[in-house]
Amino acid sequence: MSSTAAARLAALDLTLPEVPAPAAAYQPWSVGGDLVFTAGQLPLIEGSLPRTGRLGEELATADGAALARLAALNLLAIGVAACGSLEAFRVVKVVVFVASAEGFHEQHLVANGASHLLGEVLGDRGVHARSAVGVPALPLGAPVEGEAILERVPW
Amino acid sequence: MSSTAAARLAALDLTLPEVPAPAAAYQPWSVGGDLVFTAGQLPLIEGSLPRTGRLGEELATADGAALARLAALNLLAIGVAACGSLEAFRVVKVVVFVASAEGFHEQHLVANGASHLLGEVLGDRGVHARSAVGVPALPLGAPVEGEAILERVPW
Amino acid sequence: MSSTAAARLAALDLTLPEVPAPAAAYQPWSVGGDLVFTAGQLPLIEGSLPRTGRLGEELATADGAALARLAALNLLAIGVAACGSLEAFRVVKVVVFVASAEGFHEQHLVANGASHLLGEVLGDRGVHARSAVGVPALPLGAPVEGEAILERVPW
Repeated sequence: MSSTAAARLAALDLTLPEVPAPAAAYQPWSVGGDLVFTAGQLPLIEGSLPRTGRLGEELATADGAALARLAALNLLAIGVAACGSLEAFRVVKVVVFVASAEGFHEQHLVANGASHLLGEVLGDRGVHARSAVGVPALPLGAPVEGEAILERVPW
Repeated sequence: MSSTAAARLAALDLTLPEVPAPAAAYQPWSVGGDLVFTAGQLPLIEGSLPRTGRLGEELATADGAALARLAALNLLAIGVAACGSLEAFRVVKVVVFVASAEGFHEQHLVANGASHLLGEVLGDRGVHARSAVGVPALPLGAPVEGEAILERVPW
Repeated sequence: MSSTAAARLAALDLTLPEVPAPAAAYQPWSVGGDLVFTAGQLPLIEGSLPRTGRLGEELATADGAALARLAALNLLAIGVAACGSLEAFRVVKVVVFVASAEGFHEQHLVANGASHLLGEVLGDRGVHARSAVGVPALPLGAPVEGEAILERVPW
């Protein structure tokens, strides 16, 4: 593994997106005690969803995992905005909500797309507890939404 | 803005409801570290739901937002019960679960009903990270359920 | 009540299951600040689901409550693995996701199966804030999934 999370992100040919600006009484993250709680993140690229629809209908498990990876990239961007750099936080908990047709039961495999990216970029600091659940519908027709609890770590 | 959250609540012509009594091994809030975790709150008025049903079926987005506001009023009441007054806590995180028909994708607009009330009453202390997700069904047929993480603040 | 949580668990004729090994970038629990965040737990017995399906379809409320109790037994096992013994933690928050047909509105009664076990075994340390929500589908077709936030307590 490269020596820094920033180098590993670059080796994956990924760049962090902009963190969306706060809107009204709602912001991308909030600090409570030692923890950083993120808002739910959709798999947005420059403000747009590359895909809409549900797992078990329009989308296959691999599609969902790719979108969950994208949501996790947004979570990493929030971590940097909140904590200063990719070296300055660890991931404690992730919840992945997966827009699911009734018979779709691979939410955990979709969520792996998020978990794997966090591990690839952050190493041990990316290893987290996780819940993956199905939902019938998400904002804007997004196929997945991910939220995280982060902890700041000393350099 | 008025100088206290209590004054702003009064200016909105709102009064805080009673906090429901604990039932069995389940209580309205619990303290962990520096944080207060609330139970999920339905939009109850004196123990009854003013509306039941789902967004995208019986209920329009504006109906849902009004009900989310009501759930947030219950969250404020829990904050006072847990922390002593409206001046004694800030809101860190809110999750709003929205009972949704399959094609309904405005969960975030429904959740704004909760976020806006928290901001109107608590000012900067009401600005939080948030997730909004659809669900097929909630207890008692409630259209929305909201939960929060609060942090006690020094006077 | 018996004098220790371990004795109360034995009096209920229950034994704690093995905690599943970490898989990839995902582990059964993670510590953040003073708190322990668990992964979502399915009602697995030795790695298998005793029942699949949804509440309001194949499963009745009492079935769901029994399965939620089983998920809570897994949460207790994680608490022991994370904190050292049944005497070493309290339960702060529980979220129970209930796989629900559209007209099913007794998610709170299903969740009581988890809450009651935590109270029976841990006494006052098992009393928690809770959210219960419906979902259309869960990993592997599980009828319920439960996650918890725990706090370590001094002996």
